Order: sequence, then structure tokens, then C-alpha cells
Amino acid sequence: MYRTHTCGELRISDVNKQVTLSGWIQKIRDLGSVIFIDLRDRYGITQLYFDNVLNPDLVEKARRLGREYVLQIKGTVRERESKNPNIPTGDIEIVVNELNILNESETPPFTIEEDTDGGEEILMRHRYLDLRRPNLQRSIMLRYQMAKHIRNYLDKHNFIEIETPFLIKSTPEGARDFIVPSRLYKGNFYALPQSPQLFKQLLMVAGYDRYFQIVKCFRDEDFRADRQPEFTQIDCELSFVTQQDIIDIFEGLAKHLFKEIKGIEINEPFPVLPYSEAIEKYGSDKPDIRFDLVINDITEQLQGFGFKVFDSAQYIGGIKVENKADYYSRKKIDQLTDFVKRPQIGAKGLAWIKYNADGSIKSSIDKFYSSDTLDKVLKSLNARPNDIIFIISGERQQSLRALGELRLEIAQSIGLIKDNDYKPLWVTDFPMFEWDEEEKRYKAMHHPFTSPKEEDIDLLDTEPGRVRANAYDFVINGVEIGGGSIRIHKRDVQEKVFKILGLSESEAQAKFGFLLEAFKYGAPPHGGIAFGFDRWVAMFTGSKSIKDVIAFPKNSAGRDLMLNAPAPVSHEQLEELGIEIKPDKK
Amino acid sequence: MYRTHTCGELRISDVNKQVTLSGWIQKIRDLGSVIFIDLRDRYGITQLYFDNVLNPDLVEKARRLGREYVLQIKGTVRERESKNPNIPTGDIEIVVNELNILNESETPPFTIEEDTDGGEEILMRHRYLDLRRPNLQRSIMLRYQMAKHIRNYLDKHNFIEIETPFLIKSTPEGARDFIVPSRLYKGNFYALPQSPQLFKQLLMVAGYDRYFQIVKCFRDEDFRADRQPEFTQIDCELSFVTQQDIIDIFEGLAKHLFKEIKGIEINEPFPVLPYSEAIEKYGSDKPDIRFDLVINDITEQLQGFGFKVFDSAQYIGGIKVENKADYYSRKKIDQLTDFVKRPQIGAKGLAWIKYNADGSIKSSIDKFYSSDTLDKVLKSLNARPNDIIFIISGERQQSLRALGELRLEIAQSIGLIKDNDYKPLWVTDFPMFEWDEEEKRYKAMHHPFTSPKEEDIDLLDTEPGRVRANAYDFVINGVEIGGGSIRIHKRDVQEKVFKILGLSESEAQAKFGFLLEAFKYGAPPHGGIAFGFDRWVAMFTGSKSIKDVIAFPKNSAGRDLMLNAPAPVSHEQLEELGIEIKPDKK
Repeated sequence: MYRTHTCGELRISDVNKQVTLSGWIQKIRDLGSVIFIDLRDRYGITQLYFDNVLNPDLVEKARRLGREYVLQIKGTVRERESKNPNIPTGDIEIVVNELNILNESETPPFTIEEDTDGGEEILMRHRYLDLRRPNLQRSIMLRYQMAKHIRNYLDKHNFIEIETPFLIKSTPEGARDFIVPSRLYKGNFYALPQSPQLFKQLLMVAGYDRYFQIVKCFRDEDFRADRQPEFTQIDCELSFVTQQDIIDIFEGLAKHLFKEIKGIEINEPFPVLPYSEAIEKYGSDKPDIRFDLVINDITEQLQGFGFKVFDSAQYIGGIKVENKADYYSRKKIDQLTDFVKRPQIGAKGLAWIKYNADGSIKSSIDKFYSSDTLDKVLKSLNARPNDIIFIISGERQQSLRALGELRLEIAQSIGLIKDNDYKPLWVTDFPMFEWDEEEKRYKAMHHPFTSPKEEDIDLLDTEPGRVRANAYDFVINGVEIGGGSIRIHKRDVQEKVFKILGLSESEAQAKFGFLLEAFKYGAPPHGGIAFGFDRWVAMFTGSKSIKDVIAFPKNSAGRDLMLNAPAPVSHEQLEELGIEIKPDKK
Repeated sequence: MYRTHTCGELRISDVNKQVTLSGWIQKIRDLGSVIFIDLRDRYGITQLYFDNVLNPDLVEKARRLGREYVLQIKGTVRERESKNPNIPTGDIEIVVNELNILNESETPPFTIEEDTDGGEEILMRHRYLDLRRPNLQRSIMLRYQMAKHIRNYLDKHNFIEIETPFLIKSTPEGARDFIVPSRLYKGNFYALPQSPQLFKQLLMVAGYDRYFQIVKCFRDEDFRADRQPEFTQIDCELSFVTQQDIIDIFEGLAKHLFKEIKGIEINEPFPVLPYSEAIEKYGSDKPDIRFDLVINDITEQLQGFGFKVFDSAQYIGGIKVENKADYYSRKKIDQLTDFVKRPQIGAKGLAWIKYNADGSIKSSIDKFYSSDTLDKVLKSLNARPNDIIFIISGERQQSLRALGELRLEIAQSIGLIKDNDYKPLWVTDFPMFEWDEEEKRYKAMHHPFTSPKEEDIDLLDTEPGRVRANAYDFVINGVEIGGGSIRIHKRDVQEKVFKILGLSESEAQAKFGFLLEAFKYGAPPHGGIAFGFDRWVAMFTGSKSIKDVIAFPKNSAGRDLMLNAPAPVSHEQLEELGIEIKPDKK
């Protein structure tokens, strides 16, 4: 037996017990006549005491130990002289009388501490050491706790977890599939699932009523900041439900997690914002509502005064920042202007109106507008002295998006965002389709299995662009944590949507024939939702990157630096699979 | 709202309630003036009542319905006139006053019943209908219950579930890897994991102490009966444990599942059988101990009497079948002889000795042996009148294996196997290595990370074939349900084992360099186990095939007949990945 207790377990009530502990050396303090060692495991840290008078041989042995050595010790629990109130075992220490070195350790290439001195590459290469750092341990443990509470909650609500296959068929829609060559059917491929979407719908057809799965999904995308080629989804589907049923059940899940994991009790219902309102007020379909800074449409108020930029704009929007007119110096405004003019944001410029503390009005556009006009704008936004309004104009969607980015930037720079503040909400009534200018066709905004709103169903034939979907997103603090929809469950509607998406009948049949076939045999009304588990965990751990909540992540270029993967495979493997690597064209 | 109650929920106490139900039509009985419909969902069946007098229009509508239509009905709960004691809702029925057809259904291509009339291919093609059958529903639900109880048990024992990656590096050892071409690193490949073995060991190095995962694993094998290219493992690893600790914890898990899932309370410890004893007594390293029929070594007793076949044999073994001398007619013995002579079993023949009920002895070898000699054999096996002994001789291992098969065959044919009888056991002390005659090298019997027994460690240098491993299997009723080992945690031992396995230093470095590197930094003693979840579920559901406990299995040729996968992919996809299909050589 390697241990009688863990390193986090012993208390003052255990004094005088003979114990055996195993763990890693966190720290050694050699005071000459006595040596203290902090022994660490997943459960905590226990102080070991070696005394030169009591046991000089042991002190000699202890002196040759180093950081991260693995020890087994036996000894007696005693009360400490100077207690450490910061750790649960801080009242006691172990007077060691036997010491076994279970394994030695070279000096790790970086310090095993919350703030390590290692760079990203060396940390990733030695992920097994990186994972010893207390912040990563906390995150991985919290991830597990979240998964556990999710499962408990869903189980109580009659969901059953059902595993869906990983070796499926490639039906790329949007993102690229990872594919897997088949050895037994040469020239054929499996694909890894981007999500279990079709399987969970088939499980509803099969009558399983409430399904969930915490499951890996795969997308072969060009790597962007904080994307992983494999990621984890909390995937759910329910039969005989309305959108409201789904919102109720999963709002319950979110509240359960806030309470169990973050200790935050939320009693009021989460706000529900239609997509159009989210765009109009926040310039985003995943608004951060921890702060106000709503966008105001001031187009009418500022057109017709001869200022060409505004007169020719489809839209003019303003954001009021309270009590910051004095804060926004020329230099600070220039910085904001540079920010909104960045190509990713694409505004042409940034206008502003200051309602000075002394009651006077100053503005970047006062050449074109009378004080009176500007005053009316200020009044309409309920501005008070020392408020400032920032204005962006141009094409409507694009201006709203820029204003959305601007409000995030302002909130961050003037410190409107508090730690540990969470503002969840639902965004609903998404459009069914987006027009893809490049491919000159409609694309599904959510996915091709989303149902149109009953009242918009006639528009499918006439104005698809105006059809709203029974689709909803779950957003916390400006991050899309989940999304879902009520699905189509009738064959004719599904066929019509495929057609609008530009899928020919034979393509639809080749790709989704089994779904259309399944809809023939009593498909129930159903709908579901999927949450990005990595993102939700990262939000709750306060991690900057989802890499910090994944035990063995890829780096941002999609490589596993520890394994050194992807890597070449043997000629024999390719031969068996009947594939070749295409020679480089150079 | 689609329903106020499920179809399994209403009881006599609900009489007079107004309710709304949704579900599928299981059965329609049209009695002319009244119609009964059984409405089905996952939770049960509720009888609907339509009365021509009360509501002739509704009866008319109900008459046009068919099997598997999806309905929503509203009505009043009332007590049934003739109750059905076989279902929980059998005391009540619903007097329907509103009927909505949520979806129609064509006649399914097979009957949705426990014993369906559909063949395997048509069932697999319409798996979403197959999955409606009550036996499959029970199996999928029981699978979920098992997963839930496994997670609960492991959670109570301080395990945390940690996800390991699916896109890893190909390091084939034994079975073939499925590989995944990388688009961003052309000519390079990820591989799908055959198990999370190395990751769970690294998690121990990282200090996570107790890990588990219910996880998909992948093996690209030639398809055999009841193998799936993707299968689910209950994967566990623990630090600072001995073999006995692991046996204790997972015997506890098994007992927990027996109790929670099967209602079987097992109090005594499971038998522990060393590998060598399992082979000697049962001719198998996964013995079925639901019945006796142990193998007896009778080599010495039957050699030296001039019977060449036995005199030249390395081994002679006998199995006593009690009270069946009269049962085994010449014809039945011939059948058994044919059985053991099948090439898969490979015995040269089958000898026998009958202790007739009248006390006389009859034997296939009585030309060579005196009654006295045969009587001694019978006595040594404690045979009583009407017992019969079957004998196989030849090379030792091969004869034992044949006797092992023989005892299974006999047990089955004479009905020694009772339903719902479970006899779990541990098999321990496996050999470390097996000699591979073809490749002329040692192979790891468990895997290359298994530790040798402390007392055998010197044999590594001298007689690797005699080294026993700290490895153990968990067996129920002759099926290997799980297996594991205490791992090597020292770099030098791991390097030595790689060498014995014929891996050069540079190969070892290329394949497992990160593990050897990890062992430098304080790897703790650790070990683990993995259970075949599909097999365990199949054992508990009494399914003949693991296909019956997997929602969407491949067929025995590795194809998904519903999706029609694997399948060709587009030229563009291959182009992007930089691979080509090798032209057929024909």
C-alpha cells in the first residue's frame, strides 16, 4: 500500500496517527538542523518534518532530494508550531521516520507554478508538466465538475446519453470534414462528424424522446485564434417540444451550473432578445449586456443638413458614453477612430458630440450642424453634462457591426466590465437564410434542418430572405455558448429548404436521403440545442483560451507539439489504404 | 405545449384529469362503434378510446389513421372497464375529445416488434425504425443506466473524467491505426486512438491521481464476427496503487453494477486465478466458471503402456462429465470428435472412458489399457458410476486449448449453463511476452507499458519468456470484459522492455520519445484497467451481438448501411488534402 491518506486529508484531529503518504516534492526548506518538505498531490499539500537530532540519516537522505521527486513517507502526525491558515492541512505536519524515493526527477524545464517562466512552445511540448500547474489543475477539475452537474441535471429531466458514431459519411456543408481512408473499401472514406446533428434527429424519429451527449466534434478549418480542430459539444435533442420548452429546460441547466459551479444564484428569467433587436441595440447577435452603451438610430435626426457623409449614409448610429466627455481627449478619440477604421471593422470615420460639463456643446461635426440640432440629438439620447456621443454612419449592417465593436472597445477601455459578472441571455428569431454574395445563393444561417416560423412559411416561396427561423442562441457576456433550433420534421418542408439552399434533388438524395426516408415513417416534432463545452468551461474558469481547459490541446496551428502530430506515416500504411501523397508541384 | 404527460405516466389516481398526450400509434382496434388506439412513447403505452356515440367525427378521423402515425390528443382520463395488469397504465384509458395528426407514416418495411420480420440488412438500413423495437430500446436505455452508475461509482472514488484527444499520432503496435490526412500539413497524418493508453499515463505523470473516461476507440482490423471498427472503452488509471488496490476498486465497481443493473447482490470476493492455473484447469485465459468440467492432467497415468499416440504426446488431459455415460451414445461421441477435430480446434482425436452405471468400464482405448489402469484414472478423477471422461492428447498448449473448447461445447450441449447466472473472476500473473514465431521476436502480451513482476525482473535479461507481468483480466462467463496492468514508471525499465520487443533506440524515441521524456520528471507508480463497455452491456442485456447495444453500429463488414459509408469523396476534397487514390492495378 502506497498511502494511508492523501496530501490534502490530514487535520488536527489526526494528531499522533501513524500515516503513509505519497506525492511530489513541491518545496524543500533546509534550515540546517531541520528540513521541511512540502509534499504535494492532487488533493493538497502536507508539510513533512525531518529532524537532525531525531534521525540524522534521514536528514542526510532528504538533503539529496530535489523538486518534483516522488516520495513515499511514513511518520507521525503532529501539531505544527507555526500554523498555515491558508491550506486545509496547515495545522499539522508529519514527523517522518521512513522515506522511500519512488522516482527521481530532473529539474523541470520551467517552474511548476501558477505564473510559470515557460513559453507556450515549451509548455505544450511538456504538457504533462504544464498540467501540474495549479491553475490548469483547477480548470481540468472544474471541467469535470461541470460535466458531472450537466449529466445530473439532464438525467433528472429524463434525458439519456446515447453515443453516436465517429466514422460517418462526408457531407460537407460550410466547414470542411476530416476524412478517414477505408482500407477494406479502397477509394472510399469515412468522415469524422462536425456534430451528431443527423443522428440525434434520427434518435428522435426512433422515439428516444430526450437525448444528450457530451461529445467530441471535428472541423477541418483554417486555424484561427482559439479554435481547435477537435472540440467538445454538449449535444441535446428533444421530441414534442416548442422553442419555449427548450429555453425553459436549458435556462434551468445554466442556472444549475451557475449555482453549483460559480455559487451564483440567478432567480429572474434570462432576457430574450430577437435577433433584429440584438443587432439594432448592440450591433451583434451575441451582445455583451454586462454594460449599457446601447446603439441609437439617429439617422433621421442628422440627415438633410448638407453634410454629405451623413446625407448619403443608409444609417447613422450613436452610442452615448456617460460622464466621459472630459476623459475623451483628442488623442483618445484619435485612438478610437483608428480602432473603428481597422479593416476588420471597416468604418470610414468616427464622429462625436460632447456635452461639456459647463453645458456647452462641442462636436467633430459642428461645422455642419447647429448647436440646436446637436442639442436635440443629445436630448433624444437623454445625455447629461459630461456625456459624449460617438457616431458611425454608412451601410446599415456594417455600421451596426462597427458600433457593436466600438461599444466593446469602449467598455473595456473605461473599465465597465466587472470581474465575476455574468449576464446570460437568449437571442431568438434568427433569419432562416443568409444570401451568399460570392456563391450567389442562400445559405442556412443555422443549418439546413432548422424549421421556419409557422407564420413565415409562405415566404419560403416568395421571399426566402425574410423568413425567420425557430432558432435561438444562448449567449453569456458576448460569447455564444450555445445554439439550436426547432427542426423540420416533414419531408416536403425539408425538400423545399434543400431546394432554396441550391441542393438538387439528386444531391439532397445522395447526401441526406436517409433523413428524407426517415421522415416518411412518423417523425415527431423535435428540436434541440448544442453548447460549446470548451468555451463554457473557459468562461467559468476565466481562462483566456480554451487551450487552458483542454488536457491535451493542439496549438493554434493545429499541431500537437508533445506528440509531434500530424506526422508522416509509413509507406506500408498508405499502400494498404490504397492512397498516395500527391507529389509537390514545385 | 405538446403534452401534459408522457404515455407511461397516468394512473388510476389521475382519473377525470384533462390531459394532452403525444406519441406513436402502436395498434388500432376498430370495433365498429368504438375504436381503441394504443399510443406509444419511450415511457410506455396509453390506451385511447374513441366512441361513435360521443364523437362520431373523431371516430371517422381515427379510422383513417395507421400504424406509426404521430398523434397529439386531448381527453379525459377514466378507469378502464377491462384492465390490463401487464402495463403500468393498464388501469386507465383516455376518452379522446381532440385529435391532431402531427405526422403521417407510411407502412414501415418491417414490424416494429420484439421479434421483427425484417432481415439484418433492411433493419440496418432503417436503423431509426429498428431502434423503435422494444428490445433495442431496453438495451440502449440499460447502456445509459450502466454508464451513469459507472460514473457515479468512480466519482465517489475520487476519479475525474478527463477527455483525451482523438487526433493523435500513428504508432501502430499490433492492430492497425485509422489515419486522418492533414490538409494544413500535406503528406502528414493524424491517427485515431486505439486507446487513450499513453495519455492516461501522462495524466498520472501530471498528478491527476485517478482518471477515467468512457471513450470511443478505433481499430482498423479485418472485420470478424462481432467486432466494430469503433468501440467504447471504460478507461481508468490510478497513481500510487498496487494490483490489489485496483482489483479491490474495480471489483467494487462490478458489484455495484451487478446490484444496480441486474439486482444481483454479490458479497463474496471474486475468485482470482493465476494465468497458468486458468490454462491448466480450463484451457483458457478467460474461463467460464459457471460450470465445473475442469481439465485434469492424466499424462503420467496413461503413458508407458505402449499406446503410441499417448506415449508420444507431450500432454494428456481429461474432462469428467458427471452422470452422462449413458447420454453419450456412439453418435454423440462422434459429433464431439468431429467438433474437436475442426481445424480451429485442431485436436487429432477424442478418447473416452465410460464408468457405466452397472460398474463396468468401457473405453475407446481399452485395447491398450487394462481395466485396472482405466479404473485408476477414473478413481483419480473421483468418477462415479455413469460418469464419462473425455481425453485429448498432443502438444501441451494446443491440447489444453482444445480441452477448453471441448468443455464449453459439452456444457452448452448438456445444458449446464443457466440463464441469468454470472460468474466473474480475475485472471492474473500473465506472461510479459509471447514469442511470435512468424516475426521471430517477442511481443507484449498485454502492451509494451506493462511492468514485470518485481521478483521476475532479473529474468528480463536472461529469459524474457519466463517473466510474469503485473497484468490482470476481468472475466465474466468466459468473456474478457476488462484488462489492465501496473505500468512501468521508470525510464530504464521501459527502455529495456522496448529493446526486448525489438524496438531500436531511435524507433523507441520516434514513437514514444515523449513518454520516455515524461518519465524523467517524477513519474509516480501507476496502473490501470480498461473495460469493453459494449461487451459488458451486451452481457447484461443478454444480447447475442454488441451491435444490439450500439445505437448506430457498422455491419460485420464495417459499413454503415443507413448512411452508406464509407463512400467516395469529392475530387476537390482529395485535392485539398494533397492525396490521390492509387489506381487499381488491374
